[in-house]
Amino acid sequence: MRAWLAALATVALATLAPATPALAGPWRAGADAVVQRALHDPTAYDYVESISVEVGQRLAGSEAAARARDWAVAKLTALGFKNVRVEPFPITAWLRGPEEAEIVSPHPQTLAIIGLGGSVPTPPDGVEGEIALFHTYADLLAAPPGSLTGKIAVVTQPMPRTQDGSGYGALNPNRRQGPSEAAKRGAIAYLTRSLATGVSREPHTGALNYEPGVPRIPAAALSTIDSELIDHLAERGRPIRIRLKLASTTKPATAWTVEGEIPGAVHPDQIVQLGGHLDSWDPGTGSIDDGAGMGIAVAAARLAASQGPPQRTIRVALFGAEEMDYASAPFAAAHKGDAPHMVVIGESDIGADRAWSVALPAGSTNTPEMRDYAAAVAPLGVMVAREPARYSGDDTVGLVRAGVPAFAVRQDASRYFDWHHSSEDTLDKVDPKQLNQAVATWAAFVYIAANSDIDFRALRAAATPQP
Amino acid sequence: MRAWLAALATVALATLAPATPALAGPWRAGADAVVQRALHDPTAYDYVESISVEVGQRLAGSEAAARARDWAVAKLTALGFKNVRVEPFPITAWLRGPEEAEIVSPHPQTLAIIGLGGSVPTPPDGVEGEIALFHTYADLLAAPPGSLTGKIAVVTQPMPRTQDGSGYGALNPNRRQGPSEAAKRGAIAYLTRSLATGVSREPHTGALNYEPGVPRIPAAALSTIDSELIDHLAERGRPIRIRLKLASTTKPATAWTVEGEIPGAVHPDQIVQLGGHLDSWDPGTGSIDDGAGMGIAVAAARLAASQGPPQRTIRVALFGAEEMDYASAPFAAAHKGDAPHMVVIGESDIGADRAWSVALPAGSTNTPEMRDYAAAVAPLGVMVAREPARYSGDDTVGLVRAGVPAFAVRQDASRYFDWHHSSEDTLDKVDPKQLNQAVATWAAFVYIAANSDIDFRALRAAATPQP
Repeated sequence: MRAWLAALATVALATLAPATPALAGPWRAGADAVVQRALHDPTAYDYVESISVEVGQRLAGSEAAARARDWAVAKLTALGFKNVRVEPFPITAWLRGPEEAEIVSPHPQTLAIIGLGGSVPTPPDGVEGEIALFHTYADLLAAPPGSLTGKIAVVTQPMPRTQDGSGYGALNPNRRQGPSEAAKRGAIAYLTRSLATGVSREPHTGALNYEPGVPRIPAAALSTIDSELIDHLAERGRPIRIRLKLASTTKPATAWTVEGEIPGAVHPDQIVQLGGHLDSWDPGTGSIDDGAGMGIAVAAARLAASQGPPQRTIRVALFGAEEMDYASAPFAAAHKGDAPHMVVIGESDIGADRAWSVALPAGSTNTPEMRDYAAAVAPLGVMVAREPARYSGDDTVGLVRAGVPAFAVRQDASRYFDWHHSSEDTLDKVDPKQLNQAVATWAAFVYIAANSDIDFRALRAAATPQP
Repeated sequence: MRAWLAALATVALATLAPATPALAGPWRAGADAVVQRALHDPTAYDYVESISVEVGQRLAGSEAAARARDWAVAKLTALGFKNVRVEPFPITAWLRGPEEAEIVSPHPQTLAIIGLGGSVPTPPDGVEGEIALFHTYADLLAAPPGSLTGKIAVVTQPMPRTQDGSGYGALNPNRRQGPSEAAKRGAIAYLTRSLATGVSREPHTGALNYEPGVPRIPAAALSTIDSELIDHLAERGRPIRIRLKLASTTKPATAWTVEGEIPGAVHPDQIVQLGGHLDSWDPGTGSIDDGAGMGIAVAAARLAASQGPPQRTIRVALFGAEEMDYASAPFAAAHKGDAPHMVVIGESDIGADRAWSVALPAGSTNTPEMRDYAAAVAPLGVMVAREPARYSGDDTVGLVRAGVPAFAVRQDASRYFDWHHSSEDTLDKVDPKQLNQAVATWAAFVYIAANSDIDFRALRAAATPQP
């Protein structure tokens, strides 16, 4: 018995009674059937297991990214997708080299760090300096110009654990803008506590954004344990010196978004656009970010077609360079022609845990289609958010700006940032039962979106007050 | 060593480095000191331990409520509060009698149920009927008039587990309005899956609201385990009959809100109003709902005065009848005179777990006072919510409607609804470390609100677009 089946077999799925109320809308019975099938479907777990084991880490621009592309083409083809194709686009690859850091004084202590994506390297011998410690990013921003000259700026603010991932959003400037803000004040290097929940010795990477015209200083993330060690050391009042060595290279490279479709039987030009991202950070195997997300999208697309050929086309895109923010614009450009016919777009990029809420396209909540959807997923413990979806993944931003309605599934992110962007992003973190609950939540939506005539653009227009 | 000290001693509190940045505002050093003191302060845990052990359950209108009143007066006095007083108000007491339920056919099975607060009793021999099963509340609402005649309506929709408690809000109509909606369609009784996360044999009570003019039918909550059993049984396709017996009595009674103050040294007429609620449901000991909330409010008030006498008065109200919604209006009426001088109001009523977010009064986020506050609590892993506070506990609703600015601390509610309103609401669920982190989050706010000149009403007015 496969692991995912074993896990399912031990769990009572109490919500599977087959009866459908007589007064439900026309999509309810099909959506209920899709949900039940999804809870036992092996596709998503098999997908994430396969890419974790057979491809592993796949940083955009690396040798592994090309292997991931070929794997994805073969996988979508094997799963029965049509029109499988590769869309290349240019990127600047950033490739990690050896990295190390240590506390030099008051006494030597090795630090677990990881360079931020895009960081310049240090000189070969590293940089060394006394630290300037900030317990919050606001405190760094309050430091006057010149006050960090010759110093290594260290921000140790912890990230709140949140179900909706908002803690990550709140601390994102610490990693993204922190290096340039420190450099403006004279710092020679920048260290941030990992943007991570939990307390662990594994540091968490992620991209930085250097501000134009500001000196580019090397920047890394500290493990949360080492960040707390520095806090404790600082309480003793003696100066702390740190040495940091980062090596990295950059080069022009190509990335690839891989796509496949389940063609619509009636309206093949109307597209329900799903996706996840194919690239990953390099320390783990990209199982939860975003192997699981891709697996959810691929499984949901197939399940939505399990009750018969869909009326509209269901397309899945496996975006080739999400982590360094490269994939959204090329995808929007490549699909400028079909964007006006995209019914809805959604990306699955928040791990493998269960869904707790969905954000519907604006103005659609009270339609018969979405009422049937809400009732189909309510037994899964999923509710409809009050606010409509305004965002559904970094790779969809270009098309959402271009007017494509968004749909989002909110999976529980409480554990996600314990492992995200670290060496702990591995297959063992994927719980097949939770994964399939998320698949069911996506699949029922895709089923209704691809088989009804619902027009999310018209609903949004009707719901938007006229100026 | 007390339990709470033992727990703290084993945990690294990494965020306690004493340095305060030179450019911080004038409230930062004091707020930092309050935070550090709060993390080691025994007041909140001792409070909840004392009321759990010495008073226990204290349903409004019961004999225990009078004991709770006397305990609260003695406790606030012993803790040094001034102007300790009791505000009586009339309620209709609802007192639980013996309750039982069983599946009669297809085969006998005892069910763990608890009557909903306010439910009418059944006849002494109970009611028995075939069930009409609804997997969602929406399905019940879709049932036509007369379709439930002679039946017991059962809604088995599970409640989403949410950090912010929104899952409880989403399913509240299942318990509040479900009995009358079922009665309109002819039902003779109503059972809802407990509004609870987790899966347990303990049922969770809570108030219902009968709709005027609709027959009042007896209503109870099923344990989540028994709700799932009924779902499974229904899959077998044979009719299910249930017998339900509920006894309860009602009587005119008095409830009491107990108050105490730390008088302001400069502006005694300006009031920072805190609170928690003194009453509890009857099956547990009301430790997390709302022993912990009261403990947090009482401790925060004292800690806010720990750096010297506060400029403004800090008042704590221990509301006497929250669970049946009786306390808000009498409190607003009793304080009609001082409401215009209330600086801010906040109630702590979401358990004992750690804070992750705060909602500030509208328009105040970018003030020096609130920037200092945000920086003081950021090392606790607490962030400022984007949306301002519009609500801060059921007992404050009257005064918030009357224009008093609200402040809210969002504690992690992920575990709260595993125990809320059930026999499992007991002292062992209180983690002293998390409790004190919540105390620190409240206390730093109260310290700044009571010692600065911040005018939340003026800030709100300035932030509100003029028509």
